[in-house]
Amino acid sequence: MSSIGLAKIDIKKLLSGDRRSLAKAITLIESSRQEDNKEAQKLLEQILPHSGKSIRLGISGVPGVGKSTFIENFGLHLINQGHRIAVLAIDPSSPISGGSILGDKTRMENLSQNEKAFIRPTPSLGFLGGVAQKTRETILLCEAAGFDYVLVETVGVGQSEFEVADMVDFFLLLMLPNAGDELQGIKKGILELADAVIINKADGDILPQAQKTLAQYSSAMELMRNDPNWKAQVLMCSALEKKNLDTIYQMIEEYKNISTTTGHFQEKRLAQNEEWFKKLIFELINHKLKLDKGLEQKKVQLKDSVLKGVKLPLAAAQEYVDQIF
Amino acid sequence: MSSIGLAKIDIKKLLSGDRRSLAKAITLIESSRQEDNKEAQKLLEQILPHSGKSIRLGISGVPGVGKSTFIENFGLHLINQGHRIAVLAIDPSSPISGGSILGDKTRMENLSQNEKAFIRPTPSLGFLGGVAQKTRETILLCEAAGFDYVLVETVGVGQSEFEVADMVDFFLLLMLPNAGDELQGIKKGILELADAVIINKADGDILPQAQKTLAQYSSAMELMRNDPNWKAQVLMCSALEKKNLDTIYQMIEEYKNISTTTGHFQEKRLAQNEEWFKKLIFELINHKLKLDKGLEQKKVQLKDSVLKGVKLPLAAAQEYVDQIF
Repeated sequence: MSSIGLAKIDIKKLLSGDRRSLAKAITLIESSRQEDNKEAQKLLEQILPHSGKSIRLGISGVPGVGKSTFIENFGLHLINQGHRIAVLAIDPSSPISGGSILGDKTRMENLSQNEKAFIRPTPSLGFLGGVAQKTRETILLCEAAGFDYVLVETVGVGQSEFEVADMVDFFLLLMLPNAGDELQGIKKGILELADAVIINKADGDILPQAQKTLAQYSSAMELMRNDPNWKAQVLMCSALEKKNLDTIYQMIEEYKNISTTTGHFQEKRLAQNEEWFKKLIFELINHKLKLDKGLEQKKVQLKDSVLKGVKLPLAAAQEYVDQIF
Repeated sequence: MSSIGLAKIDIKKLLSGDRRSLAKAITLIESSRQEDNKEAQKLLEQILPHSGKSIRLGISGVPGVGKSTFIENFGLHLINQGHRIAVLAIDPSSPISGGSILGDKTRMENLSQNEKAFIRPTPSLGFLGGVAQKTRETILLCEAAGFDYVLVETVGVGQSEFEVADMVDFFLLLMLPNAGDELQGIKKGILELADAVIINKADGDILPQAQKTLAQYSSAMELMRNDPNWKAQVLMCSALEKKNLDTIYQMIEEYKNISTTTGHFQEKRLAQNEEWFKKLIFELINHKLKLDKGLEQKKVQLKDSVLKGVKLPLAAAQEYVDQIF
């Protein structure tokens, strides 16, 4: 792969909303070449003042819950309300790739053809912070290009949900209308991340079951969440039949209005940035230390001693850190 | 305060279960004097082979839920079953102190007079890992002294619950019989830590309400937890009337038997030790870096730039880490 280079990216066009320039910029961000990384940071510095003006929306749910249909029809609804939307689909099977294993263009056919939508798979693996680093930077680029709803989609079964929750303003969890029968493969802790639980496929014969599920999740969320800034909502919808999509939209807008007024919206972003700064420092230090083979070997030995119960964690950690400095 | 010193501690007596030697050893562990810290590590190395043979039980719940009564009567029940129990009460108001602000001797009168029980407040603040470091080491000492049930008590409203969950085998969360009416001041995320939720004060007129609460928590835990190794239990009891305490005891023993057979019991402890080792490395490095005032100032400046939106987290973190090495 040849270098992309900052020179080839037209920042003015990007800022005016040109999707091709945006796509190129994201490719630069995603590049693993060291010279590209420096160029990418320069690009990001330039667009940074133009970023931030979107609602960042995390959307998760197990395979089969109807995420594609939801994003397609909810996305079109957002566009009808005058928004421009970007969909960043986290592809767990593709480490770093511009291509789409999920086949976004076929699974969201109408949305992908709409010029007010930008759909892009985003790599789930990378050197820093798992999914987080590249996706965070891609969000900023989409915002700079004027997309005012950025949807970050994950598959709902792994670690990426925790990372995505730390980079979005609002986290939607889609659920099937059969709670109680099974656990839906949702990983421990993910339910608590949700600012709203959406029972999808609430249509036809399944409606009574969906209503029961709604009641169960309402009760569970009541017991579980304790956020003074926002009471997690539980709603039903049928993405396929486009039912209740506006209710969900109104809820998100309400969240934005309330939290902007109280200042919580901005506070949450600042806290996310601070946490991310700290986490990156830790990861960069770790990366640096791993390059020292002798030190790394020492660490493995010490860890073994801890696991064998020969050494105490504190003594072992102290011995390791004494070797660094 | 004069140095305690390893010389003054009779390890043989400690290993034979002498409570005075144990108390002295814990005081040495808790000391903030540097020379004591080295002695403490030596002591811990000597007792390490004798540790590990207990069930480590986390007990949490908001003030008013009846923790003292529960621990008193549940503790006496354990003693009646042939166990020796240690109670480590995490005292949020006392940084490092041998004294008891909670007044453990009056709040658990019968238990504190029983020679098969050892009750001790444990400092909630310290240089490393918050509550965790000293309490972890104290658990090891109690085990070496032959206490085969170690109860670690927290107040259920703060960060210490997460730390305690990471150092115990089984985490009990006590709840009042009025769920749904209010959130009981339980912090977000704590419910998910629970291996069992115990609805206390389930007696007299409140029994019907407690049963309703039991059903609600059962449903919530069903939706929330997804641990293949253990299905979180929801039980009622009346600690005051000593009702159902044996059911709780049997549940914990069952957990121990099942998880020992499957290997999960030991695996969980190993994972806890590994995590703790990693966390300590991070904290020790952080501590070391903080001693460098210029570096610390740089970090604060960079953090401000990130929060003001002038610098990106990655660029700022990189700039900081480049200064370290």
